[in-house]
Amino acid sequence: MDEFDLIHRHFVPLAEGFPGSLNLRDDAALVDIPAGQQLVITKDAITAGVHFLGDEDAALIAKKLLRVNLSDLAAKGAQPLCYFLALMLPETTSETWVARFASGLAEDQKIFSLALAGGDTTATRGPLALSLTALGTVPTGRMLLRSGARAGDALYVSGQLGDAALSHWRLLPQPRLALGRALLEQNLAHACMDISDGLVQDLGHICTASGVGAAIEAGRVPCKADLETALTAGDDYELLFSASPDADETIAALAAELGTPLTRIGAITAEGNVTVRDASGDPITFKRGGYRHFGQKP
Amino acid sequence: MDEFDLIHRHFVPLAEGFPGSLNLRDDAALVDIPAGQQLVITKDAITAGVHFLGDEDAALIAKKLLRVNLSDLAAKGAQPLCYFLALMLPETTSETWVARFASGLAEDQKIFSLALAGGDTTATRGPLALSLTALGTVPTGRMLLRSGARAGDALYVSGQLGDAALSHWRLLPQPRLALGRALLEQNLAHACMDISDGLVQDLGHICTASGVGAAIEAGRVPCKADLETALTAGDDYELLFSASPDADETIAALAAELGTPLTRIGAITAEGNVTVRDASGDPITFKRGGYRHFGQKP
Repeated sequence: MDEFDLIHRHFVPLAEGFPGSLNLRDDAALVDIPAGQQLVITKDAITAGVHFLGDEDAALIAKKLLRVNLSDLAAKGAQPLCYFLALMLPETTSETWVARFASGLAEDQKIFSLALAGGDTTATRGPLALSLTALGTVPTGRMLLRSGARAGDALYVSGQLGDAALSHWRLLPQPRLALGRALLEQNLAHACMDISDGLVQDLGHICTASGVGAAIEAGRVPCKADLETALTAGDDYELLFSASPDADETIAALAAELGTPLTRIGAITAEGNVTVRDASGDPITFKRGGYRHFGQKP
Repeated sequence: MDEFDLIHRHFVPLAEGFPGSLNLRDDAALVDIPAGQQLVITKDAITAGVHFLGDEDAALIAKKLLRVNLSDLAAKGAQPLCYFLALMLPETTSETWVARFASGLAEDQKIFSLALAGGDTTATRGPLALSLTALGTVPTGRMLLRSGARAGDALYVSGQLGDAALSHWRLLPQPRLALGRALLEQNLAHACMDISDGLVQDLGHICTASGVGAAIEAGRVPCKADLETALTAGDDYELLFSASPDADETIAALAAELGTPLTRIGAITAEGNVTVRDASGDPITFKRGGYRHFGQKP
């Protein structure tokens, strides 16, 4: 396969919605940021054999890659704008594979209203490696942060936890973009992030960034899986946020409006680590721990 | 190595100059674009065994990766702002290697006035794979493009060609940022790009984008190497630009001011492909061809 043919046939069509891509024909892309907006940027990399097996449907791999990045934008309340893609392809990659990969991107671009703006296609002697940089926008000064949690805040989580661990790659994450934007627009979330490495560990990041502690009520955590899986397994891509305890009714109304479950699972405390407590208020510990990095995604 | 420790020790210091990095502690970075500016974004990926051997000094690998991206910004006349890095590390990677890699970035960040804003550190079962996304800014509507060349333009190249092919990785590219900015600020270049895949092939991209042809005078091409190497080997990262033939004196003055050789090597023609002509005006052809992709960098 010739690089330029490949780009022309499969990736230029993905860039048509974004004039600043210059049809992927220049050294760089040109991005306009509307007045009163700031740019939110996230970058994730995944490789075959670590983050996925490698023999999955190429469209699924493409969608997962895009969606994990969109989930980061969702957690910041950002509106997706465009993305940049680096494809490091093993020499055995067929053009059929590339076409299928691009078709996955095309489908998700429509769903999530963004376009390809640039990138790089190159060879690797190793397994497939992919990196995606996603750009979004927020009104200036309004990006949701990990660092705004306050003692006394209620803690919420969207959707259900542990599902991804049960179904692994068969389940595509659903980036909670509408929820993130609503939390920003309605000034509801004091702190927000997406859960990619497990609830307990990721809540630890909010606590560290905010200088607070947190207590999870085990019985409230929405899950189909067992509790340990729900609290420590990664790849959920649900939003975890803290909000004023007075906002409970507003948040319930938002959940109904979006059709997205939002469950109050605990509270932010003034001090201490993340604790998980049972119905009697006794702390629960897990074999897999909370703060250490235990997943394959380092 | 724990991912979070690694980031904290080696990469957070690289992000200190960029408040929007949020100390690499959030899901995404926040980037402000000053009023009247547009964002210029480029992304390159390199893998061990394809773009470099893998046993080079880690600082050199880091600098090369950063500089090939900065060269793209230079070609657009952009001022570097920040960058995002995806590191896909083999499990055998030592922390010493990571520290050395980060030290290379630290040195080049100072030289080129930009900082790390975000990224991802992850494992790979294959060889080292790296992707970097670099951001720069240009005054609105002023980015240098590949598509502005006009018939009758004079063609210029900076520095010397073919040096990289002679010395391979021992030679770090020198991104021509000051030159790119001067070409933009003084409205000198009609079209501009950096030479990464060989002069003849890359000039072909300018011609395609601009709907013109070009004629190179072989005797004028500045090179230490043989002519075929100078015209077809990649990795030069010099700037190639077209300008009004009336601007020759201004361009000579700019070369003197910057201490960067700028050599007039030919002209843009109304039609045709890229041709290379000898002193008698006869076309020269090369075994390695011009338009086809022959390098390892696809």
